[in-house]
Amino acid sequence: MYAMDTFQYKYQRAATRVTILAHLFGVLAIVLMLVWLLHYRGGLDLDSDNPYLIFNVHPFLMFFGFIFMAGQAMMAYKTVRAGRTEQKLAHAFFHSVALCLGIVGLHAVFKFHDKRNISNLDSLHSWIGITTFSLFCLQWLFGITVFLFPGGSDYARTRASPWHVSGGRALLYMAICTALTGLMEKVTFLGLQHHREARLINFLGFAILIFGITVDISVVLSRYI
Amino acid sequence: MYAMDTFQYKYQRAATRVTILAHLFGVLAIVLMLVWLLHYRGGLDLDSDNPYLIFNVHPFLMFFGFIFMAGQAMMAYKTVRAGRTEQKLAHAFFHSVALCLGIVGLHAVFKFHDKRNISNLDSLHSWIGITTFSLFCLQWLFGITVFLFPGGSDYARTRASPWHVSGGRALLYMAICTALTGLMEKVTFLGLQHHREARLINFLGFAILIFGITVDISVVLSRYI
Ligand code: HEM
Ligand code: HEM
Repeated sequence: MYAMDTFQYKYQRAATRVTILAHLFGVLAIVLMLVWLLHYRGGLDLDSDNPYLIFNVHPFLMFFGFIFMAGQAMMAYKTVRAGRTEQKLAHAFFHSVALCLGIVGLHAVFKFHDKRNISNLDSLHSWIGITTFSLFCLQWLFGITVFLFPGGSDYARTRASPWHVSGGRALLYMAICTALTGLMEKVTFLGLQHHREARLINFLGFAILIFGITVDISVVLSRYI
Repeated sequence: MYAMDTFQYKYQRAATRVTILAHLFGVLAIVLMLVWLLHYRGGLDLDSDNPYLIFNVHPFLMFFGFIFMAGQAMMAYKTVRAGRTEQKLAHAFFHSVALCLGIVGLHAVFKFHDKRNISNLDSLHSWIGITTFSLFCLQWLFGITVFLFPGGSDYARTRASPWHVSGGRALLYMAICTALTGLMEKVTFLGLQHHREARLINFLGFAILIFGITVDISVVLSRYI
């Protein structure tokens, strides 16, 4: 019908722009998160005697360590200008960083709960969070086994691919939902309505949401190329 | 490499199963929502003198009216066994129902805030919610204009299609995030930790999340066919 390369060109340009937007909003979210935790919440320290400073490590690492790094991994096929093998390795590397920092971030909130004698895994946030992280670990293991080991069969890879892609996207959005419910829980618990800090947290939540959406759309558009 | 129709067959079967799952979890969420609102929260009534009964209309219509109906619209190309035109009309019809019931659901929470003199649009939940709903209205207008009017050009439709699809998916997940932050806000505000009602709400949130994911995957797999 219409020359396909016109579309390819259009999508390539659009994919590049959306990828840049994803980076802008990701960095914005990191900055807002740090302003929030350092200016309003007294800082972050995993080894502190003050349990609240231990807690603060949790939101920071769950966004910067887990979500942001996993987003980088998802965009690696677009951002890493190298051969297919290098792209796959970058994808696996960023996801492994996300996994490690995510574990530290989860450790922080469990340590906080233990110090303050708060019972674990009661809230909707913690339920979605632990499910998301567990499924992420499975997807990581599965991805390494099927796509990275040289012995993997082409047949298995082709069959697994749409599940890997749509499962990955579902996990991305689950992580975003987790982060937003976490912020919502914290702000409601602190009773911060009408306060500057609440406004800052709203913008932070928005930046996290837009990061997730732009990462998703960047991946979709790159696949149309 | 491998016969493509093996894959097509696999995905078709998988798409059907995931679509059935989406319906199961959607109905489960409606049931849990009604148990919550009728058994624990005194029922729902838009014209009540009790502002809390007015509020209760909001979560119910935002899930059953808005999210569930929009999900039905997204799955119409899979569930409606008829010609392309009938599928498109069903898609547009369900989205229009979602739009109307969503407006009533939003009206309910603004009416509740007015009755209780609570200021509007303070929370992260309300920010994401109003953004999601506004973008949904735009996407609806855009979809009608580009895809439904007989005069629309093929070129415009082909170009708009990946944006319409990925934008629609982003809106679905934004709506899920909104619903979960809404539940999180309510449960924290009511101070319900460790309580049966909180457990029920956690399961409700989970069912809503799984509904969203299965709708998404159903659409993805159907497009692989
Ligand atoms: C994807 C990112 C996240 C994951 C996977 C996650 C996971 C978890 C888990 C599993 C718990 C339960 C720990 C326990 O019961 O001892 C928890 C607690 C908590 N998280 Fe997160 N979290 C994430 C992001 C955030 C963010 C961004 C915030 C923002 C403040 C946050 C706030 C909280 C709060 C307030 C708690 C304690 C109350 C509770 O148990 O719900 N989380 N998180
Ligand atoms: C996609 C679905 C939803 C959308 C678009 C949405 C949108 C909104 C909006 C715009 C407001 C602000 C109203 C005002 O300021 O007067 C609001 C308030 C509220 N909503 Fe929702 N909502 C949704 C689902 C839910 C659900 C499922 C719950 C569960 C209980 C919920 C709980 C609340 C609560 C507690 C408020 C009042 C506090 C506030 O302003 O944040 N919402 N919602």
